[in-house]
Amino acid sequence: MRAAVMRGGEIVVDDVPEPAPASGQVLVRTLACGICGSDLHALMHAEKMVELSRQSGAPFVMDLTQDVVMGHEFAAEVLELGPDTESTLRVGDVVVSMPMIVGPAGVQSIGYSNTYPGGYAERMVLSALLALKVPDGLPPRLAALTEPMAVGRHAVNRAEMAPGGAALVLGCGPVGMAVVAALAADGVAPIVAADYSPMRRQLAAGLGAHITVDPAEEPAIEAWRRADGAKVLTIFEAVGVPGMLSDAMGAAPRRTRIIVVGVCMEDDTVQPMIGIAKELEVRFALGYDPSEFAGTLASIAEGTLDVAPLITASVDIDGVPDAFRALANPAASAKILVVPRT
Amino acid sequence: MRAAVMRGGEIVVDDVPEPAPASGQVLVRTLACGICGSDLHALMHAEKMVELSRQSGAPFVMDLTQDVVMGHEFAAEVLELGPDTESTLRVGDVVVSMPMIVGPAGVQSIGYSNTYPGGYAERMVLSALLALKVPDGLPPRLAALTEPMAVGRHAVNRAEMAPGGAALVLGCGPVGMAVVAALAADGVAPIVAADYSPMRRQLAAGLGAHITVDPAEEPAIEAWRRADGAKVLTIFEAVGVPGMLSDAMGAAPRRTRIIVVGVCMEDDTVQPMIGIAKELEVRFALGYDPSEFAGTLASIAEGTLDVAPLITASVDIDGVPDAFRALANPAASAKILVVPRT
Repeated sequence: MRAAVMRGGEIVVDDVPEPAPASGQVLVRTLACGICGSDLHALMHAEKMVELSRQSGAPFVMDLTQDVVMGHEFAAEVLELGPDTESTLRVGDVVVSMPMIVGPAGVQSIGYSNTYPGGYAERMVLSALLALKVPDGLPPRLAALTEPMAVGRHAVNRAEMAPGGAALVLGCGPVGMAVVAALAADGVAPIVAADYSPMRRQLAAGLGAHITVDPAEEPAIEAWRRADGAKVLTIFEAVGVPGMLSDAMGAAPRRTRIIVVGVCMEDDTVQPMIGIAKELEVRFALGYDPSEFAGTLASIAEGTLDVAPLITASVDIDGVPDAFRALANPAASAKILVVPRT
Repeated sequence: MRAAVMRGGEIVVDDVPEPAPASGQVLVRTLACGICGSDLHALMHAEKMVELSRQSGAPFVMDLTQDVVMGHEFAAEVLELGPDTESTLRVGDVVVSMPMIVGPAGVQSIGYSNTYPGGYAERMVLSALLALKVPDGLPPRLAALTEPMAVGRHAVNRAEMAPGGAALVLGCGPVGMAVVAALAADGVAPIVAADYSPMRRQLAAGLGAHITVDPAEEPAIEAWRRADGAKVLTIFEAVGVPGMLSDAMGAAPRRTRIIVVGVCMEDDTVQPMIGIAKELEVRFALGYDPSEFAGTLASIAEGTLDVAPLITASVDIDGVPDAFRALANPAASAKILVVPRT
């Protein structure tokens, strides 16, 4: 089958072996799969990612000398149930899934695995237990946004904000926008969102940011001070490049909680004395739990979470390498979907 | 009066002007004052400390071209009440105080001020409102330990540990030992404490550490794994040198809360990806609140907190410069008290 493959530090399109569903698994046809910033990071910092996976005791570690088919933000159609697979799923159902799968080699992450192809391929296998049927009528392209939006839901849950708090979101890429949407759903106000890109600021406003700010014109914290400055502030760092955490710590008012949801793959420098002097708190957030994932799918299906504006382009599998290049310019894109040709 | 003065990056003994109590202040005679690791840091990194104070919006910023008399862990005897000062304090009372004072120039920190001398001088002025009478019978030398022990109480309170949790304390200097004592008072078990110094490990055990470990022989986290490894762990970083936070993050189990109470004045390097992969939480802790300070004095007075073993030496004011040099070798000392000659 056709797939966009990470091979030797590049994304190349090639034919790869067809996956076959084992017991407890389902074979699916990819309908839509978002390109995630983590995939760009993974490509740029693959060796570092593998090293850190090892250090942090991750259950899976990619072998970079072998092919990896990335893509973990997918909606797909069930083609076939594996042997002896008991499931309420039927052939033809549209599903989403947390991108994890259990197999003979243990738990693996779909999209960062040498064994299981991700959504940049025509077909995948999923764990039947983790596949969630997409409610009828919800277009698969929108359902594919479940995964990235769940990241925002989790980050906001992890923040455990007291009622009546305000939020500052640094970075309005897909992660930052997912955070804005989850904050808006929780009624947080004001939500101040910062990004250099006018298009991204506009999208963040559409998702519920009350104030958007261009950090080139005004420090984000000053925009918050003008708008509010009094409530208990939570800062979401959704950029994930070196220096952002230090900047957030420097800007934060005393006793602020900073949620780090931007994935910085490189070493970073901080000033612990700033953290101590202001008694800051830094919480790192990753992923989501099954209820956050299912709840996000429900919100998209009900229409309370309108993700359509986030999709700025679609490409087929042959277009993935160019799409990766396009995403290097964050001003011009939000979410690019990979939609395999049928 | 005689004082040990920070002047031009050195500690020198000299005569300095007598302080005079304003309204709302009391003049006191220093009975005992502990030398704090922060004072060593302040001497070594004075310019950095001033710069960070400025950045973090601290209410006071030292002028390093002027004299500073440090010393903020003191017990003292009331000599005189300032004019129009209403207070239950009487001349002859022994008092301790949070090292803060309000004056015409705003709030200042006693011990890091150009205006108010700290406890490395024969006499000080204190805010009458902040001075706490030391219960009769408690030796001033022990009462002087209120301040550093309150730092440990605050760090443990700030950790908000769930019942049934375990603790790993990295570093058994005075701050680490204060943390151990507060954990022990709360019934936390096991408490695993790590330090290179056998003397400090022994003191930590005396304060309630169940297991002590020499990190040169075994990583502290391994000692905890051998002893427990199952409970929810909280890590207290009480060393405060570059690399310790990164080490703690690397060693920490998933979802661990790390309390940074060691004051690292230098820039530090962390791997955010490790924090994200394990969803760590880093809380910085500084100081204490008035109730933590008063509660610590009460615990020392009641004898539930036995601080006597922590005092490894006493010097007079002339001995302060040598004592600073001695404390550069952490293996040989815990708390050195300055006791001015009468």
